[in-house]
Amino acid sequence: MEKFEVTILGSGSALPTIYKRPTSQLIHYSNKYYLVDCGEGTQVQLRKAKISFLKINHIFISHLHGDHYFGLVGLISSMHLLGRVGDLNIHAPKEIEEIINVQLRASYTQLRFKINYTFLESKESELVMEDKNMQVFTIPLKHKILTNGFFFKEKPILRKVKAEKLKFYEVPHYEIQKIKEGADFVKPDGEVIANSVFTFPPEESRSYAFCSDTAFREKIIPIIENVTVLYHETTFLNKEIALAKKTFHSTAQQAGKIAKQAKAVKLLIGHFSARYEEKHHKEFINEVQLEFDNVQITKELNTYEVN
Amino acid sequence: MEKFEVTILGSGSALPTIYKRPTSQLIHYSNKYYLVDCGEGTQVQLRKAKISFLKINHIFISHLHGDHYFGLVGLISSMHLLGRVGDLNIHAPKEIEEIINVQLRASYTQLRFKINYTFLESKESELVMEDKNMQVFTIPLKHKILTNGFFFKEKPILRKVKAEKLKFYEVPHYEIQKIKEGADFVKPDGEVIANSVFTFPPEESRSYAFCSDTAFREKIIPIIENVTVLYHETTFLNKEIALAKKTFHSTAQQAGKIAKQAKAVKLLIGHFSARYEEKHHKEFINEVQLEFDNVQITKELNTYEVN
Repeated sequence: MEKFEVTILGSGSALPTIYKRPTSQLIHYSNKYYLVDCGEGTQVQLRKAKISFLKINHIFISHLHGDHYFGLVGLISSMHLLGRVGDLNIHAPKEIEEIINVQLRASYTQLRFKINYTFLESKESELVMEDKNMQVFTIPLKHKILTNGFFFKEKPILRKVKAEKLKFYEVPHYEIQKIKEGADFVKPDGEVIANSVFTFPPEESRSYAFCSDTAFREKIIPIIENVTVLYHETTFLNKEIALAKKTFHSTAQQAGKIAKQAKAVKLLIGHFSARYEEKHHKEFINEVQLEFDNVQITKELNTYEVN
Repeated sequence: MEKFEVTILGSGSALPTIYKRPTSQLIHYSNKYYLVDCGEGTQVQLRKAKISFLKINHIFISHLHGDHYFGLVGLISSMHLLGRVGDLNIHAPKEIEEIINVQLRASYTQLRFKINYTFLESKESELVMEDKNMQVFTIPLKHKILTNGFFFKEKPILRKVKAEKLKFYEVPHYEIQKIKEGADFVKPDGEVIANSVFTFPPEESRSYAFCSDTAFREKIIPIIENVTVLYHETTFLNKEIALAKKTFHSTAQQAGKIAKQAKAVKLLIGHFSARYEEKHHKEFINEVQLEFDNVQITKELNTYEVN
């Protein structure tokens, strides 16, 4: 099974503190790295996590509140100073291009690499990236400004073949890919051998959903249904539910409801308001568990498997 | 004597590392705070130094390379979230206004406070700020793009009066300020009593010069002459003098030459290229001391007196 995991680079909310950095997460699948959000200080967190900046080819920005992107132009500048030449792909609201360009112009910086932008404008979920193993869909969220979560969906995994059966039925090499994808085998004499003779069932394909920042929004359920690991913001505890509504954020219990309805395997939470301290963590867990059991509070620089 | 000191928030160069933050310094005079440069992560350093963001009313930006200002928009956003209402004064190259505005627009943020900009465009030294105790002059530097250092000059300090002499000569209250400023006293009968009868000589007024980033530039000497504490960048050691010239930076020995020629009392150095490590520090000191003895390497979150 390919490695599929997420490293939390920053899990705080709008106001950076000594203890919590603003939002950023690194999704790692096999040998690929995808960055989601890039708050101030993300570069240093990447260094602490020992991730080369040059391995990141896709950056997804949920929305243009500073705590989700103020570290981006610094990261781009560092990539330039480190000699990057390969294209960088940025998936973000359209204003990001001018924000980056106005700052590059001010320093007369001509990047040695190309930035390909995908502007996120739709109010419907859309496929914004696809490579050999992964599809990434937007999750339109409900926040003060245009905001998307991101759904990382592993492509269907191939069946594992039984080498001795392939040999016994003299399956030609060029047929094997189709068999891994689930096809039966037709012998030269026309006899059909069922796929199940040659293969073991595949592992279930896995998925990761990033949902921050957002008010409680059940509309996202069909997009993230059966998600393996869901990260859902929990800016507030229930006693601040009015403030959560007003500021378009979620409470811990609301995140639990989303996880339950989406039939998630596991829920990760974070983006706590700066008013909360370590001593409140148990309350966050308790409130989520009114709805959903398998929950964990994200810790910066910790890595969580998507299994 | 009023407190006059500088706290180093970041002393690294272009590439942030785990150990060195990009440039930022906080000058503290009496009850006033002035911020010079604001690299990414300055907010967190201010928090570590336990400085309230709201106490900072003047920010000076030397130039628009990212390692000197990428933390500014985040600091402004946090000031907004923390409820600032008092004006903020920013002294910087003119492009800074659009850089800030394009980011505030993207998040539909309407600041509750006003930003007064002083655009730094002149190639000559100019007075850019003056308050009760302090004057700040630009120090035009030599770098790839328009860059200014800043010269913080304490205003002439008043003479200390001898209370018993004031009483003896029955000096009226409204004459005392003039005597502190150095005037003689004329008695009602016309007799002139020399100022020295009433006062002790004042302390010498102090100054702090910030010079980063810059190539070796002797033209700055007349501006900073007799400076109390000079901070001068030393991006490179002498063996990289060609690279220093090419990138418009200085070597350790060159900084020593400037300190010597300016008759500085003390030299602080920093902004070392990321290629150098702790083990090179002794070499930086040695090279400076070929020219100038009283030198110290700046350490982040350390505070240095300007005395």
